[in-house]
Amino acid sequence: LLVSDFTEAELVARVQSRLAPPPDWLVVGIGDDAAVVEPERGRLEALSVDALVEGVHFDRRFTPPDAIGHRALAVNLSDLAAMGASPRWALASFMLPSELSSSDFDAIVGGLSSLAARYGVHVVGGNVTRSPGPLVIDVSVSGTVKPRRALKRSTASAGDDLYVTGTIGGAAAGLQMLREASANPGHAQPHAGCVQKYLYPDPRVREGTLLGRNRAATACMDLSDGLADGVRQIAQASGVGVRLEADALPIDSAARQWFEARGEDAVDEALSGGDDYELVFASKPAARGRLRAVTLGGAKLTRIGVCTPSLETLLSRTRDGVQTLHPVPRGYAHFR
Amino acid sequence: LLVSDFTEAELVARVQSRLAPPPDWLVVGIGDDAAVVEPERGRLEALSVDALVEGVHFDRRFTPPDAIGHRALAVNLSDLAAMGASPRWALASFMLPSELSSSDFDAIVGGLSSLAARYGVHVVGGNVTRSPGPLVIDVSVSGTVKPRRALKRSTASAGDDLYVTGTIGGAAAGLQMLREASANPGHAQPHAGCVQKYLYPDPRVREGTLLGRNRAATACMDLSDGLADGVRQIAQASGVGVRLEADALPIDSAARQWFEARGEDAVDEALSGGDDYELVFASKPAARGRLRAVTLGGAKLTRIGVCTPSLETLLSRTRDGVQTLHPVPRGYAHFR
Repeated sequence: LLVSDFTEAELVARVQSRLAPPPDWLVVGIGDDAAVVEPERGRLEALSVDALVEGVHFDRRFTPPDAIGHRALAVNLSDLAAMGASPRWALASFMLPSELSSSDFDAIVGGLSSLAARYGVHVVGGNVTRSPGPLVIDVSVSGTVKPRRALKRSTASAGDDLYVTGTIGGAAAGLQMLREASANPGHAQPHAGCVQKYLYPDPRVREGTLLGRNRAATACMDLSDGLADGVRQIAQASGVGVRLEADALPIDSAARQWFEARGEDAVDEALSGGDDYELVFASKPAARGRLRAVTLGGAKLTRIGVCTPSLETLLSRTRDGVQTLHPVPRGYAHFR
Repeated sequence: LLVSDFTEAELVARVQSRLAPPPDWLVVGIGDDAAVVEPERGRLEALSVDALVEGVHFDRRFTPPDAIGHRALAVNLSDLAAMGASPRWALASFMLPSELSSSDFDAIVGGLSSLAARYGVHVVGGNVTRSPGPLVIDVSVSGTVKPRRALKRSTASAGDDLYVTGTIGGAAAGLQMLREASANPGHAQPHAGCVQKYLYPDPRVREGTLLGRNRAATACMDLSDGLADGVRQIAQASGVGVRLEADALPIDSAARQWFEARGEDAVDEALSGGDDYELVFASKPAARGRLRAVTLGGAKLTRIGVCTPSLETLLSRTRDGVQTLHPVPRGYAHFR
C-alpha cells in the first residue's frame, strides 16, 4: 500500500498511534486546528526548525526510513542542546511523494517517535501533505531554559578554552562508506560505528542542558555543518579568533583510517565534514572543575584549542617536529 | 541573480532585513542555534504548522511570489484564529529550487512579512535550504489564548446555531479564473475580488480572538478545505448532526455568477471549494447578543444552519417551493 491509498486524516491517525501518551501540559492535542500547550513557568522557550530534504540531506537508496525520521528530529534536538535547552515539544511536517509505501511512512514516524521518547519530547501536532518531488520532513521544536542560562554563540572571550563533545569525522566517513557501498555493492564493508554515527546521530541533549545549567560554557553551538564551520561561527559572532590544535582533535579512529586509506588528510576531512551533531563550546579555564559534571552526560569532552584576540581562525599542526599555522579549512556550504 | 548565487547565511540576512524590529519578548533572535522567547504569562500557547508546496497548493505560473509568501502565513494564522488565539511568533522554513530568482525570493519574504506586520506576528527564526524539486514554504506559528478559552472543534451541542464569517466560494472561483486565464490568455477577464480572495486571503484573526474572548462560540474551525468539510468535522468531533440551509449560504456573488455561467451548481461549488479561510462556528441561540461584538472585527456573520441530535450532515434546499434534504457534498481531499 502507498501513502496515496490513504486520506490525510488516515495518515495523521497512523502518526498518532505511534506517539507516546500525551503529557499533562498538552491541553489540546492532534486533531484540532492547532495544538494547545501550557508553557513551563519561569522558563524561556528555545525554538528551532530544520528540514530534511531528499536529494539534499539524505539519499533514500541507502538511508533506511527509520533513520530519516530519527535524523529529522535529531538535527533539531541538537540545536536545542546547543542553546542549553531541555526539549519539550515538536511539530512534524511531512511532505510525501505519492509512491512512498505506507510501511516506509510508518518506519519514518517510528524513527522519529523513538528518539522523541528517548528525550521526553512530545509531538504535539504537525501536517501531512503530498509532495510532487522529494520526500521532505520539516520539524519544529521547542525546549525550555532558565532565564540567563541560554548558551549563545556570541559570548566567547579571548582566553576561553574550546572543547568539543565526543568524536568528529565519523558521520562524514559513514556517509562516504554508504555512498561507496551503494555504488559498488559487496565491494567494501562499511564500518558499523561510522554508519551508525551518520544514520542515527545521538544529539547531545544531556551535555547541552548540563552546560547551560552549571554555567560551564561561555558560548556553544552544534556541529551540523562541521567543526570548522562551528568554530568560525563562534569566533565571528563573539568577535574573537580561534586557534585549534590538530593533534588534539578527537577524530574517530575508524574514520581516520578510512580517510588515510584514500590518501586524504584526516584532519581536514574531520574538520570540514558535517553531520556529527556534537557540541563545540568555549569555557573559562577557571571553570574546568565544572566540566566534570557535564561528562556525566556520557560524552567525553576534549580541549581542542583556545579563543584568541586576533580574529583569525587558525589550525596549528606539528609535522616532523615542525609546527605550522594554517587558516581553518572552509566548512560545508548548502547552496554553492 | 538566482538564490543559488548566495550562501545560506546571505539568504537568511535577506529575510532578516525584511522583518519588523524584534519585540521585547524576543531574547535571542535569528543567527543562533535557536531563537529564545519569553512566554506570555498566564496564557496557553496554540501551535500549528502548515506547508505550501508548489504543484500541490499553488501554481507559480499564476501565483505572484508575494502571494505565495502571504498565503504561507495566512493559512497558519487562520488555524490560530480558529482556536481563538492571538498570533505571536512564526518560524519560516524555505525549501528553494536553485533556479528561483533572488528577487522572487525577496517578494515571497515580503508577502509573508507584510501579513506578519498586519497582525503583529514576529518571525523569530527559520531555515533556508535547497530543494531539488518544488518550492516549499513551511510555516509554524504560535499564538496565545487564556486558559479555558481555546475554541475546539469537539464542543458543539445539538441546538447550537451554525455561523460562517464573510463569504464562501470566492477563492475557489478565483482559482478557476486564474487557471482559465493562464490556459487562454486574454480570453476571460478574472474577477478582481475572487482573485484577491484566492491569492491574498485575510485570515479572520480578529473574529477568532473576539469569539474566544467573549465565549460567544461553543466550537470553531477554519474553512481551509471548504465549508462542507468544516461542518462535517465539527459534527463528527462533537457527536452532533448538522442541517444547513442552502438559501442562507453567503455565496460570493461574482463566484455565483461564474459557477452558474458554467452550468455548475453554485451551492455545491461554494460548499466544496477550499481556500476561503473563513471561520465556521457553533453558538448558543442565547449568546446571539454577544455576536454583535464579534462583528467589530469587520466580517459579517451569517447563520447558515443548526446542530442537530441526528448525527447526519444535511443540506436543506428549496426549489420551486419544494423543500428537499440532501447529504452535504464531500469536501476537498488532499491525497485521493
